Amino acid sequence: MQDPTFFPRGNGLTLQAVADLVGGTLGADRDASRLVTGIAALGEAGPDDLTFFDAPRYAADLAETRAGCVVVAQKHVSLVPAGIPSVIAKNAATAFATAGRALFPMAAAPTSPSGIDGISARAEIHPSAEIEDGATIEAFAVVGPRVRIGRGTLVAAGAVVGADCRIGRDCRIGAGVTATNALLGNRVILHPGVRIGQDGFGYTAGATGLSKSVQIGRVIIQDDVEIGANSTIDRGAIRDTVIGEGTKIDNQVQIGHNVRIGRHCAIVAQVGISGSTTVGDRVMIGGQTGVTGHVTIGDGAQIAAVSSVNGDVPPGARWGGTPARPVREWFREVTYLHEQALKGRSQRSGDE
Amino acid sequence: MQDPTFFPRGNGLTLQAVADLVGGTLGADRDASRLVTGIAALGEAGPDDLTFFDAPRYAADLAETRAGCVVVAQKHVSLVPAGIPSVIAKNAATAFATAGRALFPMAAAPTSPSGIDGISARAEIHPSAEIEDGATIEAFAVVGPRVRIGRGTLVAAGAVVGADCRIGRDCRIGAGVTATNALLGNRVILHPGVRIGQDGFGYTAGATGLSKSVQIGRVIIQDDVEIGANSTIDRGAIRDTVIGEGTKIDNQVQIGHNVRIGRHCAIVAQVGISGSTTVGDRVMIGGQTGVTGHVTIGDGAQIAAVSSVNGDVPPGARWGGTPARPVREWFREVTYLHEQALKGRSQRSGDE
Amino acid sequence: MQDPTFFPRGNGLTLQAVADLVGGTLGADRDASRLVTGIAALGEAGPDDLTFFDAPRYAADLAETRAGCVVVAQKHVSLVPAGIPSVIAKNAATAFATAGRALFPMAAAPTSPSGIDGISARAEIHPSAEIEDGATIEAFAVVGPRVRIGRGTLVAAGAVVGADCRIGRDCRIGAGVTATNALLGNRVILHPGVRIGQDGFGYTAGATGLSKSVQIGRVIIQDDVEIGANSTIDRGAIRDTVIGEGTKIDNQVQIGHNVRIGRHCAIVAQVGISGSTTVGDRVMIGGQTGVTGHVTIGDGAQIAAVSSVNGDVPPGARWGGTPARPVREWFREVTYLHEQALKGRSQRSGDE
Repeated sequence: MQDPTFFPRGNGLTLQAVADLVGGTLGADRDASRLVTGIAALGEAGPDDLTFFDAPRYAADLAETRAGCVVVAQKHVSLVPAGIPSVIAKNAATAFATAGRALFPMAAAPTSPSGIDGISARAEIHPSAEIEDGATIEAFAVVGPRVRIGRGTLVAAGAVVGADCRIGRDCRIGAGVTATNALLGNRVILHPGVRIGQDGFGYTAGATGLSKSVQIGRVIIQDDVEIGANSTIDRGAIRDTVIGEGTKIDNQVQIGHNVRIGRHCAIVAQVGISGSTTVGDRVMIGGQTGVTGHVTIGDGAQIAAVSSVNGDVPPGARWGGTPARPVREWFREVTYLHEQALKGRSQRSGDE
Repeated sequence: MQDPTFFPRGNGLTLQAVADLVGGTLGADRDASRLVTGIAALGEAGPDDLTFFDAPRYAADLAETRAGCVVVAQKHVSLVPAGIPSVIAKNAATAFATAGRALFPMAAAPTSPSGIDGISARAEIHPSAEIEDGATIEAFAVVGPRVRIGRGTLVAAGAVVGADCRIGRDCRIGAGVTATNALLGNRVILHPGVRIGQDGFGYTAGATGLSKSVQIGRVIIQDDVEIGANSTIDRGAIRDTVIGEGTKIDNQVQIGHNVRIGRHCAIVAQVGISGSTTVGDRVMIGGQTGVTGHVTIGDGAQIAAVSSVNGDVPPGARWGGTPARPVREWFREVTYLHEQALKGRSQRSGDE
Repeated sequence: MQDPTFFPRGNGLTLQAVADLVGGTLGADRDASRLVTGIAALGEAGPDDLTFFDAPRYAADLAETRAGCVVVAQKHVSLVPAGIPSVIAKNAATAFATAGRALFPMAAAPTSPSGIDGISARAEIHPSAEIEDGATIEAFAVVGPRVRIGRGTLVAAGAVVGADCRIGRDCRIGAGVTATNALLGNRVILHPGVRIGQDGFGYTAGATGLSKSVQIGRVIIQDDVEIGANSTIDRGAIRDTVIGEGTKIDNQVQIGHNVRIGRHCAIVAQVGISGSTTVGDRVMIGGQTGVTGHVTIGDGAQIAAVSSVNGDVPPGARWGGTPARPVREWFREVTYLHEQALKGRSQRSGDE
């Protein structure tokens, strides 16, 4: 038996259609009506595949590619081998991503794992919930009192949407997700196992142990946010926890109470952001980084992976390390320590 | 349409009731019968809100607050503006937390997301399970053979309680939780997605790969423990894994087999504690910190966030860094490295 | 009432049976027909228990043990006290693990938490799914279109197996797991809350925010792999994500798209491995370590806990630290910094 293909090729796109889609133009060796039906890396692409090139270190792969079409920037078009069609686009990687979504629309957002359309008789839906036509609610999903769910939205098997939540249109609420005390915009994707809206971790140390602070805020998730599997986002304590429009969060990320994250940020796996911190727009945070509470990361800042941010970060800055500081300082310190320790050892060896 | 309030205000408390509740006294500008119905930060509180003040850096906010009442310590009462009522308490933060729980009792512990009371016909309950009157078992929850569940306990949608587990009274077993091989006390809160009692990670490297050690211990969770979303606690290998009374564990924390954690500890998000380690009472461990196996952290110790503990920590110590050491040493090393690297660079610059 | 024992003792094994099972021989004070029914640590073992000894630091415990039998290597057999039976094996720890699995077969792999055998009427199984006789599917589990499941496999309560997945024989798919776009071999164990096959985190930064790259690869999990609770494994972008035969992954581990992990690796809790990285065979990675994308870790390499790997690691190397480097270098730098900072302080103190 053959291994299954989860995302089979469809009818494909002509090269002209690719060019139009990405706002590009056809290169030499053009055959506007030629079809591509798949996507692949430069070295693996065949005559039916679209690929792309945007880094000189892959020039050898480009020289030998058998792809049906290569997406490239104008400055690289001369590197495309004769006989290989190309589409010239401003940003080859982004254009390739756009074409890939058009070739494999089923892969662009999670689909119903049980393969249904509409509302399962085995879902548990409170009579007071309002669900627009065209939503899909799978078996064993729970929709609580007064919840509202927009059309085109999928609530997958075993997901739980608690009382009074609102979920917009064309959202994907993955299998086994729980969402409580939350308002979601449109086209929000929550991957399986995401936990939204539980209590933040708020305690004060008293005489007889830890005293719990009630958390009465909400979680607001704006349009086009995507949140990775098993990530957790606590609801606000007094104000709300907010994830801004278009922000993408990877798997196993933890967002504390009252955190405000701006728009179009990318937050990589296993990051933790402590309570009441504010993150600006277009911020990138590398994997496993921790951010302490009550600080501000400015717009456009980039934080390296496995760093620890314990103070404010200026807009546009590139910081890293523990504690995080400008990456240049961080690298300098790493290099200094390495050199000195090496020198220390050779001196000691010399003494012997 | 107006955004929903998940935790609506109730009948409120008179200032006298607040004072009585927290063991405090009314300050000047008293109006013992005045009502507060909500809680808010100093700068956002209105005339119906209770707030608190305990740090001089917020003195400006205090001077301009419009709150209905401010909880303060005696030493700060002179800073409360004229016309603003106050309640004087020994520990303002703890007193405020206590009053908050009284004002918003529904927020103090998770409630049924599907909005039910009692046992759903769509729960899967083994005939041999014993469930006291007054427990709530939601749809799609599973209660295995011989399980016992106490009155007032909620087993939320999709939670799975495996064979022979015992769960005390007034517990909250969140949606999608799994608990196996576990004994829980009273008033235990497991947030959604918590995993209790699976195999610990025990292998020995043999000639033909990794050889698995069976894990035949249990997980014991004492009264008033709270465990955050998606945290995982492995069962013991030969002895038990134990979480002591009143200990609070945040989201995405990992506790290995045989670990014993004392009472009234606070363990922040994404911490990992390796197998057979012992943690004393009233220990605080900051977020993302790792603790190696087979070590002991003494009573009252505090470990900074993003640290790595690889040896015993004395009682009452404040440690941090990688490897963790007294915070004073750690800060000294960080500062030394920073200064030396800077000096090294300026010398090199001077040479040019 | 007595606390329940989740793993009761069975009929036990004679010492001869233990010796045969582990390929060992009986030591002095032999009584080949004597029975052991349990396992315990040296200091806690009673006359019915098997225990083992393999480290001189536990010699005092060995001298006082009351165990029914001690598994030891030949070189340690002289340390076993008179009157205590022993089994002599090449690798005492591995032999003890083997005997433990035989004494407690129910603990070697997760069992049905709801206590059933066969297919629950409350499972949601697509008519096109093919399930071999002898599989167990619990209540509220979902098996999607065209899925194939082998005999002896358990799909526990609330687990979701998405369209077209294939799961081999004698697997354990834990409660609340989701598996999509995945092919699993035989005897694979997925602990509760594992998430397999969701989108990898692939974006390119464009003019109007982040542009998503479709992920059309699969997750291939080979025979005898075990994956800990709440771990997440993303499907491949263009190629597949692969976990090699016999590899053991602990709780809360994150594996990115296109990652290839070899055979018989051990990956400890909270590790994160970024996209397109290749890990060889028999690699050990300590807890909380991060591995960047597009690097290669050679066969047999060992990476210390809480490290950060940002380049290739040679086969057989022992690396650690941030950034990871040979452990000897890492320790030297840690020591150098500690000594210098101490010296710096005493000089300054001397100046005062």
